[in-house]
Amino acid sequence: MAINHQNIRQQETQVNHPVPPTPVRRPFPAELLTALKSAFGERVSTSDAVRAHHGRDESPFDPQLPDAVVFARNTEDVQTVVALCGQYDVPIIPYGNGSSLEGHLLAVQGGVSIDLSEMNRVLSINAEDLTVTVEPGISRKQLNEALRDTGLFFPIDPGADASIGGMSATRASGTNAVRYGTMRENVLGLTVVLADGRVIHTGTRARKSSAGYDLTRLFVGSEGTLGVITEITLRLYPQPEAVSAAVCAFPSMGDAVRAVIETIQIGVPIARVEFVDSLAIRSINRHSNLTLREAPTLFFEFHGTEAGVKEQAELVQEIAAQNSGEDFEWATRPEDRSRLWNARHSAYFAMLQLKPGSRAVSTDVCVPISRLAECVVETEADLKGSPLPCPIVGHVGDGNFHVCILIDPNKPEEMEEAERLNHRIVQRALRMDGTCTGEHGVGLHKMNFLLEEHGPVAVDVMRSIKHSLDPRNLMNPGKIFTWAA
Amino acid sequence: MAINHQNIRQQETQVNHPVPPTPVRRPFPAELLTALKSAFGERVSTSDAVRAHHGRDESPFDPQLPDAVVFARNTEDVQTVVALCGQYDVPIIPYGNGSSLEGHLLAVQGGVSIDLSEMNRVLSINAEDLTVTVEPGISRKQLNEALRDTGLFFPIDPGADASIGGMSATRASGTNAVRYGTMRENVLGLTVVLADGRVIHTGTRARKSSAGYDLTRLFVGSEGTLGVITEITLRLYPQPEAVSAAVCAFPSMGDAVRAVIETIQIGVPIARVEFVDSLAIRSINRHSNLTLREAPTLFFEFHGTEAGVKEQAELVQEIAAQNSGEDFEWATRPEDRSRLWNARHSAYFAMLQLKPGSRAVSTDVCVPISRLAECVVETEADLKGSPLPCPIVGHVGDGNFHVCILIDPNKPEEMEEAERLNHRIVQRALRMDGTCTGEHGVGLHKMNFLLEEHGPVAVDVMRSIKHSLDPRNLMNPGKIFTWAA
Repeated sequence: MAINHQNIRQQETQVNHPVPPTPVRRPFPAELLTALKSAFGERVSTSDAVRAHHGRDESPFDPQLPDAVVFARNTEDVQTVVALCGQYDVPIIPYGNGSSLEGHLLAVQGGVSIDLSEMNRVLSINAEDLTVTVEPGISRKQLNEALRDTGLFFPIDPGADASIGGMSATRASGTNAVRYGTMRENVLGLTVVLADGRVIHTGTRARKSSAGYDLTRLFVGSEGTLGVITEITLRLYPQPEAVSAAVCAFPSMGDAVRAVIETIQIGVPIARVEFVDSLAIRSINRHSNLTLREAPTLFFEFHGTEAGVKEQAELVQEIAAQNSGEDFEWATRPEDRSRLWNARHSAYFAMLQLKPGSRAVSTDVCVPISRLAECVVETEADLKGSPLPCPIVGHVGDGNFHVCILIDPNKPEEMEEAERLNHRIVQRALRMDGTCTGEHGVGLHKMNFLLEEHGPVAVDVMRSIKHSLDPRNLMNPGKIFTWAA
Repeated sequence: MAINHQNIRQQETQVNHPVPPTPVRRPFPAELLTALKSAFGERVSTSDAVRAHHGRDESPFDPQLPDAVVFARNTEDVQTVVALCGQYDVPIIPYGNGSSLEGHLLAVQGGVSIDLSEMNRVLSINAEDLTVTVEPGISRKQLNEALRDTGLFFPIDPGADASIGGMSATRASGTNAVRYGTMRENVLGLTVVLADGRVIHTGTRARKSSAGYDLTRLFVGSEGTLGVITEITLRLYPQPEAVSAAVCAFPSMGDAVRAVIETIQIGVPIARVEFVDSLAIRSINRHSNLTLREAPTLFFEFHGTEAGVKEQAELVQEIAAQNSGEDFEWATRPEDRSRLWNARHSAYFAMLQLKPGSRAVSTDVCVPISRLAECVVETEADLKGSPLPCPIVGHVGDGNFHVCILIDPNKPEEMEEAERLNHRIVQRALRMDGTCTGEHGVGLHKMNFLLEEHGPVAVDVMRSIKHSLDPRNLMNPGKIFTWAA
């Protein structure tokens, strides 16, 4: 425990950010496979295709295949897998929709991937309480489809059609968080299968509680390292009476970001405010067949009553104009709004097409809003010196932005350059009181950044909790922090 | 670990809720006192008066005096106390303003009370980011006084002028939570002295983060059992452009509560909506020299733009009328609003005066909003059979209400009757998917209720975390759950 914080920080700023540690796979005994097959029959697979599908995600890392995949149908199935794997000391990796950007799903120590996609039921909708209980495999779009006739919706929207289980496990957020919060604020309770096979129910459907340690918030963001989430109770919101959207181009990133800062500081309850830089706009135009001006651009959305939306929108239009915003353009018809936001949502894939065959190293820093303009402008200047295409998009109302560094996965020097840029962006954000990850999680990629951000003692507290709840390191091992200090 | 959940539940519903377990005081070695005196001089006290002041709170329990009180001035002081107490296996109890209702401050195993009231500085206000960092001893009123010229405010308001440290430790909320959330949503980061004397900083000033386990939320609500909070970063809000308030009487509790339910369900962003029953109104009228009609009453407050407040208020007035609300009365002038809310805030002390010399057993259940009318109406009927005065007030927008059971502390049969009522109220709330404590915390009083609410396995997870971070049970022992399963 006699770690010298200063020394650690020193070391890390000297060392270039490492690629994930070389995996040490654990043995996968034939007896375990036999036991799994006897319990699950056809729902266990060891085929190369299925394992390959479950050993990768949207991160730039090379796949690491699990030894087997089990398709679970209920909490008891998950308990069975956990109990059997426990008997043989074999890791367990929960799998939702595979949209992680940080290598969460890679079986770096081998083990069994529990595919939860068949656990995608809505268990109960309590419209009067504005709550819903779902299984973890349901995707956010499936959930909102199921809610359509209730007049309610679930606002958290990370872009990808992620599973609610994965979103809970990574504390996801996205475009609507500026108004509705993140998964942290919107998960009310969980059912979790622990490493020892026991099941707990955390939280309640009441809006608040002071009953003991906040286990719900402990599991939200724990990235599968403390247990497998098998049920989730979420907060819902009434569909707004009125919605309007707009786009506005700015002469520079700094101008756009300053408009956002003022909007937040005066307390406009804006529902979405997204930044997209010129290069990202170009990719979106191509991909979604739009003709947006290739300039730093903000996408806005307003929710409220008719009068409220009008009031918010007028205020924001005024702020945009004061910050040199040009061509403030409304999208009031639902089809225009959908077109706009579909384009924004496909930005990730659109950007990948800027460099065919590329993968993206996506940075994810989030800074206090007062430092956002400075952070973005410094970052922009820094990126100009790089040979790699680096479009920027961001949930700027929260101070969160992503540089999407496009690399050829076959060129190690490009990966190295991406790591160099990423490292500098994180250093900048930490210097500005920010965080290395606003919404993607730590996964494989940011373990050293986590150490820099919180210091070795706080990470040691996380490790103590992990050791106490999963003493044999069975649950998604090798993620967030190293097992030994 | 082979605990049978069903059996446990069975047992607990049979057993009447116990009074707190008989304390077993630990030895307080003279060497420790010498060491504390040498480190802190005059800032250590063992006087009866000081110990008596620190060995009680607003709960109905008999005082349990600490062996000594240390007045800390900074994080290093707290570290010193923790290190010295650690050497001698002596408990540490953090003390803010003494307004706990659940016995959190009672030194049930003896030990040292760390008085944090001198740590009441505002360390930094970041108006542009809507954040402030404070020491734990500052009270919410002191904080808002310090913020007055910034145009910002901290909304969480549990009634009492509690310390921000105490509010964090109990996950407090109160009248504004329906709009602004609880301490859970509004603490962004903490500095904490751990049981082993190490210091951690949790969270960042960024609005969101996915960087590792949510230690901030783990310490918020941990009631001093995992460490001593020495700095707190909070979220602030712009003072609303317009505020208006109103009161409205209803023919019955059910009518009043149904008006609230409709208001929440259609998504009115109401800032406060408080229920006060006839008996509580009588006490408030006497105490604050008002002439409110002695009927079930709602107090409303609206925050927003001029137009927004008008729109909200009209909507709510209409909903109140549809639910038989009478005499909807506006308090638009600031002095009228203050008078109204001061009266509401003094309700606790006003109610105590209904029975001179009494203490209050305050229940604190919180249920999903759809069950609130049913829960309140059943409770009202149940209380009618009791000889004790039982006024009811509630933060009904959150589904949270308090029955303030007034007992003569010298009459054990009254304590027993209060426990009987409390037990039935909690059972009712749990049956309705609610929680035994919306905002007061578990403390000494609700350990068995916690077990009923979350089940032995979840409480065991809490206990494992406690064991891993405080293996010698030094931090506020005897609260939330028992040390051994």
